[in-house]
Amino acid sequence: MAHLLSTSCSLKLSSSCRSYPQALNGCPKTCSTFFTLQTSKSSFRRLVFRGERPKRSFIVQAAAVPVTQEAPTQSSSNSHQTSGEPSKPRRVMVIGGDGYCGWATALHLSNKGYEVAIVDSLIRRLFDHQLGLDSLTPISSIHNRLRCWKSLTGKTIELYIGDICDFEFLSETFKSFEPDAVVHFGEQRSAPYSMIDRSRAVFTQHNNVIGTLNVLFAIKEFVEQCHLVKLGTMGEYGTPNIDIEEGYITITHNGRTDTLPYPKQASSFYHLSKVHDSNNIAFTCKAWGIRATDLNQGVVYGVRTDETEMHEELCNRFDYDGVFGTALNRFCVQAAVGHPLTVYGKGGQTRGYLDIRDTVQCVELAIANPARPGEFRVFNQFTEQFSVNELASLVTKAGEKLGLDVKTISVPNPRVEAEEHYYNAKHTKLIELGLKPHLLSDSLLDSLLNFAIKFKDRVDAKQIMPDVSWRKIGVKPKTVAA
Amino acid sequence: MAHLLSTSCSLKLSSSCRSYPQALNGCPKTCSTFFTLQTSKSSFRRLVFRGERPKRSFIVQAAAVPVTQEAPTQSSSNSHQTSGEPSKPRRVMVIGGDGYCGWATALHLSNKGYEVAIVDSLIRRLFDHQLGLDSLTPISSIHNRLRCWKSLTGKTIELYIGDICDFEFLSETFKSFEPDAVVHFGEQRSAPYSMIDRSRAVFTQHNNVIGTLNVLFAIKEFVEQCHLVKLGTMGEYGTPNIDIEEGYITITHNGRTDTLPYPKQASSFYHLSKVHDSNNIAFTCKAWGIRATDLNQGVVYGVRTDETEMHEELCNRFDYDGVFGTALNRFCVQAAVGHPLTVYGKGGQTRGYLDIRDTVQCVELAIANPARPGEFRVFNQFTEQFSVNELASLVTKAGEKLGLDVKTISVPNPRVEAEEHYYNAKHTKLIELGLKPHLLSDSLLDSLLNFAIKFKDRVDAKQIMPDVSWRKIGVKPKTVAA
Repeated sequence: MAHLLSTSCSLKLSSSCRSYPQALNGCPKTCSTFFTLQTSKSSFRRLVFRGERPKRSFIVQAAAVPVTQEAPTQSSSNSHQTSGEPSKPRRVMVIGGDGYCGWATALHLSNKGYEVAIVDSLIRRLFDHQLGLDSLTPISSIHNRLRCWKSLTGKTIELYIGDICDFEFLSETFKSFEPDAVVHFGEQRSAPYSMIDRSRAVFTQHNNVIGTLNVLFAIKEFVEQCHLVKLGTMGEYGTPNIDIEEGYITITHNGRTDTLPYPKQASSFYHLSKVHDSNNIAFTCKAWGIRATDLNQGVVYGVRTDETEMHEELCNRFDYDGVFGTALNRFCVQAAVGHPLTVYGKGGQTRGYLDIRDTVQCVELAIANPARPGEFRVFNQFTEQFSVNELASLVTKAGEKLGLDVKTISVPNPRVEAEEHYYNAKHTKLIELGLKPHLLSDSLLDSLLNFAIKFKDRVDAKQIMPDVSWRKIGVKPKTVAA
Repeated sequence: MAHLLSTSCSLKLSSSCRSYPQALNGCPKTCSTFFTLQTSKSSFRRLVFRGERPKRSFIVQAAAVPVTQEAPTQSSSNSHQTSGEPSKPRRVMVIGGDGYCGWATALHLSNKGYEVAIVDSLIRRLFDHQLGLDSLTPISSIHNRLRCWKSLTGKTIELYIGDICDFEFLSETFKSFEPDAVVHFGEQRSAPYSMIDRSRAVFTQHNNVIGTLNVLFAIKEFVEQCHLVKLGTMGEYGTPNIDIEEGYITITHNGRTDTLPYPKQASSFYHLSKVHDSNNIAFTCKAWGIRATDLNQGVVYGVRTDETEMHEELCNRFDYDGVFGTALNRFCVQAAVGHPLTVYGKGGQTRGYLDIRDTVQCVELAIANPARPGEFRVFNQFTEQFSVNELASLVTKAGEKLGLDVKTISVPNPRVEAEEHYYNAKHTKLIELGLKPHLLSDSLLDSLLNFAIKFKDRVDAKQIMPDVSWRKIGVKPKTVAA
């Protein structure tokens, strides 16, 4: 059952000061009950009401307060905006806004002056409990995160807790928030998780495909001009022996030419779910005139963004385990605790990578420069390519500068993938929109290794090695012993 | 809830002679209770026991009877069989074996000497009830169909009634039947149905994608060498401006070359579900060594096969309505009842077509010449290309020979599709395996128009016009008034 909850209107939650195990250093506590009523979408000032909302009848005290000081990023290349189209998107719904990329993005957009709502089922936190995992960094509850953000910045991020596969819930969020843009991170996002057992494979594809279908129907039904910014993955392309283009490729065949969707060769049930999504979205752009941007993201690394480092209560999650940990994050934790870096197989696997500070930048650029109605636009969202061996080498050298003795071992590859292959993926469209990349060489020590060292006492060594095999996946539900 | 039922072992069903509204002319009634126990997969004789199976304890009378006289089709091009591989597939599970293509295929394979089991949830019959539709031809219950087949031929087709999305049910069918090949027709197969409303769109993708995932897991878990023959659709390719190849295309790009999955551009939630399936199956071939053939089938027409015309109780369904009716079948019914042929839009939409007698032939050829372990093989399964206007013209001329006055009208196209386009799709692989096509010019009068005329009193004129719009689909559940 979906549970619809807005921190900006729920008495139960915000009318009492809940204690939090960590000290809320410098983050003023706010315990008042309030909710927000928007009177005009184009207004730069909004009425914020304080009071109670028992069922459908409102008892309120009104006070006008400024909502934003900053204007959203303006881009010179915003050629899609014509006089007949709505003004700059201001209201952004971030689905999956409690997750690794989603949380950083929600804060960034709020900081940049967008009105932000987070929609999240919080199931990612449940996965941690079920699998016995935990973020390297201590993370606060979503409610405390949002209260802290409000206290620090005066900005309210609305919260809707529920499952987007439940269309009744999703409808309410759309009717209530009326987004100009939806950023959709709200999917099961781990390839190993999707390969644990049959039920997780089925969950991943059902959850991701049906959730996205529901988002598309909600846009069509309630906010037709809304721009969908959907997180895809570079893994959709696989490792073809030709250059990877951004979503489309022009093919000349038997004397005729057409520009067609770039062939996909995904390599896990998770990656496949993203391919399914891309195909579904492309169809609705054509059939219904949906405007969509598919961000085929590379592997994200790093923890810090300008916003999350404003207070420890805002700290982002940092996964290093064999299920949710991304390659580079995991290597840094391994280096910090003296565990050998675990290269899967030969280590020639090459992928696109980006700093999480670039994730939030890219999403903002996509929102500020929306796709046209009916356009299905694909951007490859990464900044640099590395092989796994190159990453291991970089982490080793950086570790040595910090006095760490870093070893590397090859472990049997739990995945089915080419371990030596050609890889050259284009990624110019976001650069053209204004992306200023944070390169790995600059952030390795700053945002990664030092972070891993800071929290190394929280590392659970049991979580480091891969435990999910692409070939051994079976139908029996897999559980984790204590 | 899935309901596991085998007509060959259920007392409840087969121990009493149920009355059937239609006369069972010449089809001897069999009312005995029996079940089959296979002692060896390679045996050409099997023990058939008669008796009761109360829960887990068996009370049986044994009798040895010959099961088949005929050998499965042998093909000279069966180069995949090596000494280390299992012998010719003999046990074939037909998922969706109560449907239009599935029923004809199940009978054909049984007739050719394969041991056949039908797995079906019968939900297609429920759709007819819910939408107020009916087959032009009167069709018997699956139980009476199978009893009649047994009476006429002595051949038993086992029956498992349940939902393949229920993995517990599917597991039991695999463990019980141990197929050498699975023919998977068990999907929601109508593009208009998938475009009725949100819930039908979601149902279609969930049902088709999860059902197929479960089949893949069942093969991996229980019968690893089993060959999956999966029904795809030519509609997965869309209408690209280049020749359509069979599943793969060799692309030279920036000086490098690779052979990649042919780009897909599906144009309904149904067609998209088939694309999702293809991608999922391709992955499991690579990761698990599944052997699979994807039959990208064109539009099927016709009613009769050698087997279904053996008795009226075996008659196949014939859909002419706007939801389940395929283009040519619908035109023939329209001609028979004096309704103008309804061409959607300009009528230049060109597709591949085939006679249902070729569907059953193609499936048999695929089974008799299985894919290699790890191979994901794609055949384009059609015999001729026609535009909608060409079909209308052919039906008009054939109707005139029968004294019918056939008119054609253009109706607004309920779909989103190109109405004039290039179309040239390859279809040589099944011909190379031995397919002998039934061409439309030969079957139009025989298997189509005369059939439509014979049953024209059963035509419901309200069902002929399209009632489902690709653009108007909404989130409100659509119901049918009386």
